[in-house]
Amino acid sequence: MDSRAAIIQYVPRPGIIDLGWGHPLPELLPVELWSDAGQTALRAHAWQALTYGAAAGPGPFIEWLAEHLDSYDQGNTKPSEVFVTNGASHGLALAADLLTEPGDVVLVDSPTYHLAFPTIADRRAEIVAVPTDDQGVHPGRTAELRERFVRAGRRVPMMYIVPTFANPTGRCLPQQRRLELVDLARRTGLTIVEDDTYRELAYDTPAPPSLWSLADRGSVVRLGTVAKSVAPGLRLGWITAEAGFVRRLTSLGYVNSGGGVNHTTALTMAAFGASGAYRRHVSAVRRRYAVQRDALIGGLRRAAPDLRFSTPAGGWFLWVELPEPLTADMLAPVADAHGVAFVEGARFFVDSEHGRSCIRLAFSMLPPDTLAEAARRLGQAVRSARADATVAAESEPGRERG
Amino acid sequence: MDSRAAIIQYVPRPGIIDLGWGHPLPELLPVELWSDAGQTALRAHAWQALTYGAAAGPGPFIEWLAEHLDSYDQGNTKPSEVFVTNGASHGLALAADLLTEPGDVVLVDSPTYHLAFPTIADRRAEIVAVPTDDQGVHPGRTAELRERFVRAGRRVPMMYIVPTFANPTGRCLPQQRRLELVDLARRTGLTIVEDDTYRELAYDTPAPPSLWSLADRGSVVRLGTVAKSVAPGLRLGWITAEAGFVRRLTSLGYVNSGGGVNHTTALTMAAFGASGAYRRHVSAVRRRYAVQRDALIGGLRRAAPDLRFSTPAGGWFLWVELPEPLTADMLAPVADAHGVAFVEGARFFVDSEHGRSCIRLAFSMLPPDTLAEAARRLGQAVRSARADATVAAESEPGRERG
Repeated sequence: MDSRAAIIQYVPRPGIIDLGWGHPLPELLPVELWSDAGQTALRAHAWQALTYGAAAGPGPFIEWLAEHLDSYDQGNTKPSEVFVTNGASHGLALAADLLTEPGDVVLVDSPTYHLAFPTIADRRAEIVAVPTDDQGVHPGRTAELRERFVRAGRRVPMMYIVPTFANPTGRCLPQQRRLELVDLARRTGLTIVEDDTYRELAYDTPAPPSLWSLADRGSVVRLGTVAKSVAPGLRLGWITAEAGFVRRLTSLGYVNSGGGVNHTTALTMAAFGASGAYRRHVSAVRRRYAVQRDALIGGLRRAAPDLRFSTPAGGWFLWVELPEPLTADMLAPVADAHGVAFVEGARFFVDSEHGRSCIRLAFSMLPPDTLAEAARRLGQAVRSARADATVAAESEPGRERG
Repeated sequence: MDSRAAIIQYVPRPGIIDLGWGHPLPELLPVELWSDAGQTALRAHAWQALTYGAAAGPGPFIEWLAEHLDSYDQGNTKPSEVFVTNGASHGLALAADLLTEPGDVVLVDSPTYHLAFPTIADRRAEIVAVPTDDQGVHPGRTAELRERFVRAGRRVPMMYIVPTFANPTGRCLPQQRRLELVDLARRTGLTIVEDDTYRELAYDTPAPPSLWSLADRGSVVRLGTVAKSVAPGLRLGWITAEAGFVRRLTSLGYVNSGGGVNHTTALTMAAFGASGAYRRHVSAVRRRYAVQRDALIGGLRRAAPDLRFSTPAGGWFLWVELPEPLTADMLAPVADAHGVAFVEGARFFVDSEHGRSCIRLAFSMLPPDTLAEAARRLGQAVRSARADATVAAESEPGRERG
């Protein structure tokens, strides 16, 4: 059976509690509810659920989504401002494709979602990290950086950012900076591609308003997805953008040819939303992930008191700073030996010299007791690696993870 | 209700029988069977059906597909040679993206699928029609054309062709030409992107072997889809290509980020295949479309004996040559007035000066009696337009359709 092709992306490592995967908790995936929604959608729309769909996505989904988005983020999103995608990453690929030319500069938050880098690089753009401080992107210095590139004759059409419950930091960009950033976009014509993947996973207070909701139309292309709130395997997401940008998306050759890119699934999601199942499900999801977050944080406070982190108010990740002189690549093999794993912080920076003393821990995929055990193992690994590092750092070469 | 966003791509025109749409017959879309398959897949794979999928597509679908493909087209396709897409058009966009650089020459069959043009043009390639005769692509003269571009310093990395039950002609490229074409690819490094969308819709005899099955690995990227045999709204297709090309696809940033691009749907299709529902369904589909083809052809022979066409052995389309001096743009407004519509032949040529005396009729979407009525109306329109054209062609300017 080992020779068979894999079903899922996740690859378990025997004996290791792996906090590296930003994947959902299996038991939170709504297997029964989604099966019901599929039957409801096929009964309701019959053959229309299976034929070529409207290019921007099917009306019942778009109308549910526009209303739903406005119920928790007052962007006044109109149906004509929605384009259904195959997930947030697909949305990023499409946005980068429409906004950039080969050789352009694309600005990115730093640290930021590491798998955005190859998606943007596939468009042959140069990726440049913007200046940040402990609150996140610094809009004034970002404006200066942009200006320097423009004066040097470069095009800077796009900036990518995860401003809300960010991957990897869990942080939210403060309101004042949100306003300054959309003002920068308005003044300069820079388009901000806002990855709003984690918006629904707010555990303590409501999520801050999206850049999309704060900006003039034309300044922000916002990416959304059901990957975190329902199920990633559906590959169902959306772009909200000015209607003209949506028309450019629907005019893409392959969209014009095949119709809406995820028609049947979007109609199923509309049924899932209209029945009330979505609201109930996402409430349960929020409660569960908050408990998992608290289990990991509580475990770390007990077992690894020399790790520094702030408590994320939402999302899936804890961004941890290691005690000196530890670096993530020094800790990784020791952690492996103690049966725990993470993603090294440098992965989330354009320049991998940054973030070497940081690690990202995902609390999304594992139940509370496993997270507490992971914290215990990590605490042991940190103590062990720190002792090694202090005593004999030179005798142990660092390990690089691919 | 008129202000609501559309659900589907098809737009009915009151009073018109529209033979322009290459869409499936609504009652052939397997609403009940697909609902059952969805439940089966979710029961069988539970949370694994909803989480991030393997990048190339889920094993159960790929293994079913590889076996199924070989059951009717002996390509000896290995699971490592399959990449699951969001349909054949998405496959074309991905293949063009990986194979071409902006400014390259992409060769295309002529006439060919008109919506492939914008998909290729989105990649900023120059589209050049290859020399053809009444059997289709002429491999020897295609080799000469390619050679001329190469000598002029141009890259010619890719050729697009629908060799089997082609859109728009319904034609199959003869076996000898298939062999010459894959030999040309082998000798020159040209990659043939074979759009194999209509393979399963063989009505009289089995479809000829695919270029993929005849070629050395590395020469052909074959595009497949369930759009015609099951349902287009699923946006489920595949690429078969050498394993190295599949690895390039799975390494794309957005695929690496989101996992397989149509995970849940592919697992549903695996259940649909494994249960035997697919085989039974596609047999029924073939029988029905053959009856529709025969109804249209019979109707035209009775009502429009001066139209010339050959009987397609599969697919969805009839390619019709109008009697002189009629052109499609002359016929179109008269046909509208008689309550029937089609796609003008020039749409399927790179250079719209060609194909002006041809029209494409789709027999896929309408039941036999409606097709017979369409043929009757078209016969009247042809007689009327021909009389007009002969008597007073100059007094009526031709109409261009967008």
